[in-house]
Amino acid sequence: MTSRYVLREGRPGRVVVARLKPGSDLLLSLQEIAVKEGMEAGVILSGVGLLDEARLRNCRSLPKEYPITDENRTFLSFNRPLEILALSGDICMAEGEPIVHAHLTLSSVDDDTIDVIGGHLIEGCVVFGFAEIILMELEGIDMVKNMDEETRTLQIFA
Amino acid sequence: MTSRYVLREGRPGRVVVARLKPGSDLLLSLQEIAVKEGMEAGVILSGVGLLDEARLRNCRSLPKEYPITDENRTFLSFNRPLEILALSGDICMAEGEPIVHAHLTLSSVDDDTIDVIGGHLIEGCVVFGFAEIILMELEGIDMVKNMDEETRTLQIFA
Amino acid sequence: MTSRYVLREGRPGRVVVARLKPGSDLLLSLQEIAVKEGMEAGVILSGVGLLDEARLRNCRSLPKEYPITDENRTFLSFNRPLEILALSGDICMAEGEPIVHAHLTLSSVDDDTIDVIGGHLIEGCVVFGFAEIILMELEGIDMVKNMDEETRTLQIFA
Repeated sequence: MTSRYVLREGRPGRVVVARLKPGSDLLLSLQEIAVKEGMEAGVILSGVGLLDEARLRNCRSLPKEYPITDENRTFLSFNRPLEILALSGDICMAEGEPIVHAHLTLSSVDDDTIDVIGGHLIEGCVVFGFAEIILMELEGIDMVKNMDEETRTLQIFA
Repeated sequence: MTSRYVLREGRPGRVVVARLKPGSDLLLSLQEIAVKEGMEAGVILSGVGLLDEARLRNCRSLPKEYPITDENRTFLSFNRPLEILALSGDICMAEGEPIVHAHLTLSSVDDDTIDVIGGHLIEGCVVFGFAEIILMELEGIDMVKNMDEETRTLQIFA
Repeated sequence: MTSRYVLREGRPGRVVVARLKPGSDLLLSLQEIAVKEGMEAGVILSGVGLLDEARLRNCRSLPKEYPITDENRTFLSFNRPLEILALSGDICMAEGEPIVHAHLTLSSVDDDTIDVIGGHLIEGCVVFGFAEIILMELEGIDMVKNMDEETRTLQIFA
């Protein structure tokens, strides 16, 4: 089994706690927070709350050659109450701007069955009531995305 | 798309690592830890382990007007081995007491199929063997829940 | 309801951000990072990315007496694109070596249906493209696993 990686070290910095209000788009709010707070490197520590709409991106096929493109992806929309079970990811710099990269896990109920869905966070996930988001800035580390030759995409530490 | 939020900053504080023993109720243990350790603001960094019973709350319908009440919710119980895949959330103060707000993701197997469920953590999630929980206190931030006029519920930074 | 636990305190230490490259085994990479970086206590803050193979362990039955063994477990393999939705867990010392204990949540799509699976992270989860992993070392705490009489397994703070 292979084990190849690039690695850098940083230090924990300030923690930003945000409550998103009704109607807010989850990704756009995170993006706006990262930009306005000037967070150039960070990690999502926690995200909980409720959505009444969601849109998620998943990968349905793998390309023979990198990069993965939208031809490999499925975009699905949901209109129902969805609990935010987990929000994972980080904040990096790409092309001079902070960019939030996050994956989302959501639950809903249909009669007595719980259905859990998830995927890459894109625009279209809308808060109902509230969402509590906790981010931690990372200090002493450059989390900048540059073109990576191997995967032919923007990657940290490339 | 809307992006409305309230935001405050804090600093990382002490980290509390707890191993819950067999038969412990997950939420009640978290609550007891928060109270005994005097954690007035915190974030759940990680939770893994195994349950042999779970009870979860999900939202099945949205009210025409806030607040969401139990009329909008479904409470479901499960009696089987369930791995704790993720535990997300935070610790705030509400009505003078630390309160843990957490969402839980769980997996089980039936023959060769993995079933993932999740929802809002309530009483009735019982540890089998062990659960390892890691909390981080937040310093320099008031995470107090007060009545929010818009959602007609207790909210942080209201 | 019972609430029994053992608890210790530590402090946030350095943060390690790693990008795993194509073909890397997720668990083995985490293990190698923990060993090479000399992390004796830590927490997984975040994990996102894509796999093209996964292998997961779940618990299908409970023993009448501890410990849980492989007789109680189901090991399942998956060959398809799988988004890493969440990676939870910690790094402890067991028998003189750092050991990563993690649980994984994954999503895939089949036509227009999202399927979410998860379980205990074992060898056989292979990165496609990249995975971004963020670990935080914990200082001032001994997270050493010793034999626990009650569960008859290695446990922290036993």
